[in-house]
Amino acid sequence: MSKFFDVIVVGGGPAGVVSAITGKKYYPEKNFLLIRENPVSVIPCGIPYIFYSLDSTEKDILSDEPLKANRIEIMIDKVTKIDRSKKEILLAGGERLKYGKLILAIGSESIVPRIPGSKKKGIFPIKKELEYLKKLREEVHKVKNIVVIGGGFIGVEFVDEISQLPGKNIHIVEMLPHCLLRAFDEEFCALAEEELKKKGVNLWLGEKVEKFEGGERVARVILSSGKIIPAELVILSIGAKPNVRLAEEAGLWVGRGEGIWVDEYMRTSDPDIFAVGDCAEKRCFYTRKHIPVMLASTATAEARVAGSNLYGLKVLREIKGTIAVFSTRVGNLVLASAGLTENKAKEDNFEVVTGEAVVPDKHPATLPGTRKMKVRLLFSKFSSTILGGQIAGGETVGELINVVGMAIQKRSQAVELETFQMATHPWLTSPPTVYPLVTAAMDAIKKMRSNL
Amino acid sequence: MSKFFDVIVVGGGPAGVVSAITGKKYYPEKNFLLIRENPVSVIPCGIPYIFYSLDSTEKDILSDEPLKANRIEIMIDKVTKIDRSKKEILLAGGERLKYGKLILAIGSESIVPRIPGSKKKGIFPIKKELEYLKKLREEVHKVKNIVVIGGGFIGVEFVDEISQLPGKNIHIVEMLPHCLLRAFDEEFCALAEEELKKKGVNLWLGEKVEKFEGGERVARVILSSGKIIPAELVILSIGAKPNVRLAEEAGLWVGRGEGIWVDEYMRTSDPDIFAVGDCAEKRCFYTRKHIPVMLASTATAEARVAGSNLYGLKVLREIKGTIAVFSTRVGNLVLASAGLTENKAKEDNFEVVTGEAVVPDKHPATLPGTRKMKVRLLFSKFSSTILGGQIAGGETVGELINVVGMAIQKRSQAVELETFQMATHPWLTSPPTVYPLVTAAMDAIKKMRSNL
Repeated sequence: MSKFFDVIVVGGGPAGVVSAITGKKYYPEKNFLLIRENPVSVIPCGIPYIFYSLDSTEKDILSDEPLKANRIEIMIDKVTKIDRSKKEILLAGGERLKYGKLILAIGSESIVPRIPGSKKKGIFPIKKELEYLKKLREEVHKVKNIVVIGGGFIGVEFVDEISQLPGKNIHIVEMLPHCLLRAFDEEFCALAEEELKKKGVNLWLGEKVEKFEGGERVARVILSSGKIIPAELVILSIGAKPNVRLAEEAGLWVGRGEGIWVDEYMRTSDPDIFAVGDCAEKRCFYTRKHIPVMLASTATAEARVAGSNLYGLKVLREIKGTIAVFSTRVGNLVLASAGLTENKAKEDNFEVVTGEAVVPDKHPATLPGTRKMKVRLLFSKFSSTILGGQIAGGETVGELINVVGMAIQKRSQAVELETFQMATHPWLTSPPTVYPLVTAAMDAIKKMRSNL
Repeated sequence: MSKFFDVIVVGGGPAGVVSAITGKKYYPEKNFLLIRENPVSVIPCGIPYIFYSLDSTEKDILSDEPLKANRIEIMIDKVTKIDRSKKEILLAGGERLKYGKLILAIGSESIVPRIPGSKKKGIFPIKKELEYLKKLREEVHKVKNIVVIGGGFIGVEFVDEISQLPGKNIHIVEMLPHCLLRAFDEEFCALAEEELKKKGVNLWLGEKVEKFEGGERVARVILSSGKIIPAELVILSIGAKPNVRLAEEAGLWVGRGEGIWVDEYMRTSDPDIFAVGDCAEKRCFYTRKHIPVMLASTATAEARVAGSNLYGLKVLREIKGTIAVFSTRVGNLVLASAGLTENKAKEDNFEVVTGEAVVPDKHPATLPGTRKMKVRLLFSKFSSTILGGQIAGGETVGELINVVGMAIQKRSQAVELETFQMATHPWLTSPPTVYPLVTAAMDAIKKMRSNL
């Protein structure tokens, strides 16, 4: 007879781990099993930093300790099928397991473009597998000419990291007119590009890859403009698509390849099956339309919602949509974004007003190490509700964007930001007189004043 | 005939400057005058850092450029009287000026305790005056034995800074059992004290000053326990009292010395006179009771409310009470607090639950420079509304506390923090799996679970 678990989690990434731990905290009397394919899980956000910042790829392993401490069983195996009628899953070895509740945290897969030559040796899509990444690290260290395809934040983080290795010749190819254009307006993208140029990275913007040339192994990247880039190693970071096969074959709703359909409690069309993380469809916080944003942080928020709602819905623990809040670092510059960009808002027909601020990040600005911080906030013209924010500056930007994220999730008005009571300190923040979120909100209000 | 200004601001600190600039932005057609006693204003938060971090005291001057750029007239003079019947103010030189609206930003004064010997030379209360501070800087550099009386955040910042000068023998005396006890619970105070001890600072906790001894100049501090501390220089940082004389003599309500009474729009009992900053009474965000918190950041929030409500109330721009959000740095440790501490909440009869988290501030935690971050959040046991937060860790704590501040000002629930969508990045934040505010909220929810 098949073994029974109250809750089976499929997938060992952050979404899987956090949904299991949260579920166990809320339902300690239930027994939990987490199944994953890889003997160890890697920390996805840390992958770009295995080349230089970390001594070895093993330093990027996601520990099993929290699972063990929470008495969650771990099994290394591949789930090949879900039999919903029997509430069973089938494993690659032929074994069957019965579940009470099933959580799918089966992630996404790197997109490999349909470009001639893309199967050549030396071309690496990004995979979250330790042995694969160890090999990639070795190869990166060995070769000189490296081309990264895709200038989203992952591509940018890869080139930023690799550029710290001596003697490399590094290129990044982006189809859009700027790097990071899905998360930032042009001005902020340009700041990131300047940092990359300073580091000697070659930028190929508004360029498509025509084909990969070489023998068995890649030797050149040919762009549609005719430019030829010598390449011993190519990293593909053009995005990922949600893994939906298992769900699709089980008859769950999966929409148009945009991820497994989920309600606000992360339940799929089968109330006993939840989906969280990259494999689950993401909707925009403002429009509820699909948006292709895959972030570990969003995944963990979804996982907490799934875990706490397994056996009964706890209202107020729903996901109203993803606010796409994230931060990255390029050289010494930290860039962060939350909610809508101006471009995205206009595409989607929002009537918006922006507010801007450029202020020192310490005070007095004569303190050593003072840098400029640049903020753009986006508000609804009519209601003055905050719609988004972008920030560029030093290390503190990483948490400052979370103030914006909280303001968005709590639907704050421009005037609430204008009169925000914040902590300020000479070494740690901008001066209270021109605190950047306040100053940017004031700037926006000035533009809206005819409405006030 | 007396000259007329639409708006006269009295006081040149952050509260005065920000109320003038905000007012001018909202009412550009009005003419504004700012009167202050000092030829130049110093940045109050920067004062502790004039001894070592800044090359000179002049590096801590608050620039007049923003006032000039906003066409706000500046006058250096002392206001000696307010004649409300004529809507006039009297200046020290005998001149009279007529006002339409008057904003009092007249600050506070350092408390000098009634202790024998406290008028001796070498004993310095903290004053926000450039020439005075230049002299203090010189003396600090000259002497060896320095005693700071008062272990609040200003006293702690002074000793932290001065301890960087070589060859000093530094003492701090605090009446309460711990430093920083008004802003933190004991555990966090202890972390700050460890840092001070590491720097060689001598802590005298739970100790009162009995008297200052010496000749014309101070030579020793005698504690009530009988201990004798050699002292060539004493800095008094035992707090400040609001300047209310001008308001009191004009017949405005001033309560029991707790500051000039103001409504939620920062209007005094006279609707044409506003008061902002240290001179205005502060009320607790949760109870509306008086609290003795004086922060430049709070002052600027009040100033923005006053400036925008000068000629007509704009609802939503009120001060519902101060949330006492602030941050400080001791050695390499950053400490920050917002809202109520557990001690304060219990004193005030709140039924509370706390949640705690100790997590790495980067991820993977194997990244160089990773430190621990410690968070305690405080929630109402019944409603699960957030009441406060305390954080200790690295530099990013300075903005992380503002996430807590936003959550408090928007009256967030524990479950909203638990499912908070935050930006995370290996170099910039804790991992998404254990983001400290989320982890602490989960810990509190677990304790509250019997209610759920």
